[in-house]
Amino acid sequence: MDIQAHVICIGNEILLGHISNTNAEYISRRLSSIGIKTSKHISVPDEEDTIIHAIRSSLSDSDIVILTGGLGPTVDDITLGCISKTLDRKLILQKKVAENIKTHFKKRNLKMPKNNLRQALIPEGATAVLNNIGSAPGLIIPIPSPSPFSKREKVRMKKKILFALPGVPFEMRDMFEQAIIPFLKKTFKPGLIIKSRVIKITGLPESRVNEKIKDILNIKGNIQMGIYPHPEEIAVKITVTEKNKKLANTAINKIEKRIESRLGDHIFAYDDEGLEEITGRLLLRTKKSIALAESCTGGLLANRITDVPGSSRYFKAGVVTYSNESKNKLLDIPMEIIKKYGAVSRQVAASMAKNIRLLAETDIGIGISGIAGPGNGTAKKPVGLVYIALSAKRKTICKEFRFLGQRKIIKFKSTQAALNMIRKALSKARP
Amino acid sequence: MDIQAHVICIGNEILLGHISNTNAEYISRRLSSIGIKTSKHISVPDEEDTIIHAIRSSLSDSDIVILTGGLGPTVDDITLGCISKTLDRKLILQKKVAENIKTHFKKRNLKMPKNNLRQALIPEGATAVLNNIGSAPGLIIPIPSPSPFSKREKVRMKKKILFALPGVPFEMRDMFEQAIIPFLKKTFKPGLIIKSRVIKITGLPESRVNEKIKDILNIKGNIQMGIYPHPEEIAVKITVTEKNKKLANTAINKIEKRIESRLGDHIFAYDDEGLEEITGRLLLRTKKSIALAESCTGGLLANRITDVPGSSRYFKAGVVTYSNESKNKLLDIPMEIIKKYGAVSRQVAASMAKNIRLLAETDIGIGISGIAGPGNGTAKKPVGLVYIALSAKRKTICKEFRFLGQRKIIKFKSTQAALNMIRKALSKARP
Repeated sequence: MDIQAHVICIGNEILLGHISNTNAEYISRRLSSIGIKTSKHISVPDEEDTIIHAIRSSLSDSDIVILTGGLGPTVDDITLGCISKTLDRKLILQKKVAENIKTHFKKRNLKMPKNNLRQALIPEGATAVLNNIGSAPGLIIPIPSPSPFSKREKVRMKKKILFALPGVPFEMRDMFEQAIIPFLKKTFKPGLIIKSRVIKITGLPESRVNEKIKDILNIKGNIQMGIYPHPEEIAVKITVTEKNKKLANTAINKIEKRIESRLGDHIFAYDDEGLEEITGRLLLRTKKSIALAESCTGGLLANRITDVPGSSRYFKAGVVTYSNESKNKLLDIPMEIIKKYGAVSRQVAASMAKNIRLLAETDIGIGISGIAGPGNGTAKKPVGLVYIALSAKRKTICKEFRFLGQRKIIKFKSTQAALNMIRKALSKARP
Repeated sequence: MDIQAHVICIGNEILLGHISNTNAEYISRRLSSIGIKTSKHISVPDEEDTIIHAIRSSLSDSDIVILTGGLGPTVDDITLGCISKTLDRKLILQKKVAENIKTHFKKRNLKMPKNNLRQALIPEGATAVLNNIGSAPGLIIPIPSPSPFSKREKVRMKKKILFALPGVPFEMRDMFEQAIIPFLKKTFKPGLIIKSRVIKITGLPESRVNEKIKDILNIKGNIQMGIYPHPEEIAVKITVTEKNKKLANTAINKIEKRIESRLGDHIFAYDDEGLEEITGRLLLRTKKSIALAESCTGGLLANRITDVPGSSRYFKAGVVTYSNESKNKLLDIPMEIIKKYGAVSRQVAASMAKNIRLLAETDIGIGISGIAGPGNGTAKKPVGLVYIALSAKRKTICKEFRFLGQRKIIKFKSTQAALNMIRKALSKARP
């Protein structure tokens, strides 16, 4: 059985391009994790005819229809009315919902605007899902089949289900996890599950990755392969549809091993982890501490490293020396060296790395000096030229990079390359 | 004349929830800026029948249909074939496009895989838009009306236009700005234009902003008002539909003045500008330089300030002192002070601000010390407690904040508050 869902998002702000539609993405990702396939996303403005037409056509084409948005207390919020008209069911005031809305305001010591009680007018036969965060309830509406919507449909299920959820992402997510996922699992007992793994690669261009694993990327059947480029990072995604978790994991592991054997230590992480988490874990495991001296990255490397909870156990200090004087004053780099080689040079980056290591008394020091642009590039030293040095007690190494892109991209790529240098140095180190 | 567009995004990765659909958002925002209304977003998987059905139904319901995705070189990329079938037009190899694809690979010193020439097979009557970044061309396909799609339509225009653009966001955006926007402006001379302005507010909670401008937020007619909360920032958006730019600007300015009179200097910026740009401009105008000493923000403030091109003219140096030792060594803060008051204290933040100002010889010094969490909070000093100090020659001020949220949110909110303190100090200063 192939259960299909449509996601309909309602709201002028989506069609004006004022907000990102993260709800559709989130719902589809969670549905696919329990084996339900999303076959369409639709976004429509707050207009009655358009909404009714969209609900009608989705109920005809799919088993599950999930609406988000338009459940608020204002006159613009017309989702409840549209559902009532589409299904020809009366709106009835549900006491439990009304109480919950009143409590919501009481808890916050706020006076409830009268309008808010409109949110308790629920279509006949609907089950309300209480909102733990805001005031708008969610709805679960089973629709018996054959229904007025069965005309064009291939009958896949005994009944269809229409869900209505608030548009505010964190209210919607809370409700989806607490009520909708458990309900779907119980109702549909999906026969197949979908599982994904992401393999993250750095230090190789996309075309090289493509070449090395072309045959694997072309695998078909119950496996979907994808390759997604990010700045200085390639994500290869394996998605498997299988009868159960065990079979899915076996299939994923098999492909993963083949990819690992071809890409070796260009692979730096799996799934949600970034280079900062990986580097952090390696620093903890090898019991090394680190300090940074940044110029063109302007603090982004320190920021990424300190985004990781617990990073104070290995990250001790950073400096952002954005002028020649500060390189001299804070890091004790002789003005002659800066003048002789230029601030953006192998020599200065190496001195930055070494001197911050000594100053902060850490095991590792990183120095980054480059030209992030858009100004200050020359023919010899163009925008995107970046030197990154890593200094340890035994030696200091320095690498030259030439990155393409705008200022923020060059900053980010530089931190990716620096984190990868730390990762490579520590992967070899013994704890 | 009310010109309407549909945006259709093609790709399994969207329906699996693997990627955010930022293309639909971007396209709608840009369309609305030139007076074209988006009436629907549709996302469909890489399946021929579904794609053909979506194109057919959108061509029937709207004047402009913009497809993105599925133009790549692999067998999964079937958009060109689907267009050819929907319109019943042959695919013909366009030499100009083929040459451009070959050049794309030659420039990068890469061998062109044979597959890529598939991208030069273009439906009859289509104009190709060359890709400046990748290899997939875009397409502009005028469809004369009455057309096979005119059955259900209300005829709004003499002809309809179908566009096909690459799915990779930066390729799509480049093409959209370079070719599609100019083409649409020339072809449709839209009768009404839509203009928006965002007013950015900080230092007030959303509920207070709401209260102060409630009547203005309720304005209707050709004006749409929106209020969007962000961390330590509220955006109020005014959107006006008018006959021409002048009328639109007049309407916007009128509302803007009313909002300004109520929110005063809580307003810090308009449209796309962030606090870092505003602060940067104020530093330039008042000819002041700045240095930073960060603890819990871990370099994020330096990073945000250096995201602004040209920031080296006022930003001189930063330190990230993530341990007591580094506060002592790099900033010369006596260990007794740190032990007596704690690293997270008014006294230490003030010393950080003052000492970095003296060390870097700048006009302003900022010191930030707090607890970003998730660990290390206590009853007296909970997660989210942050001290921010601003030191100038004449005096040093320090403020206490209690932020809610997760680690990254607390870091970000702290930098918002710090930038706002700089803004307020400089707004009073004379150049």
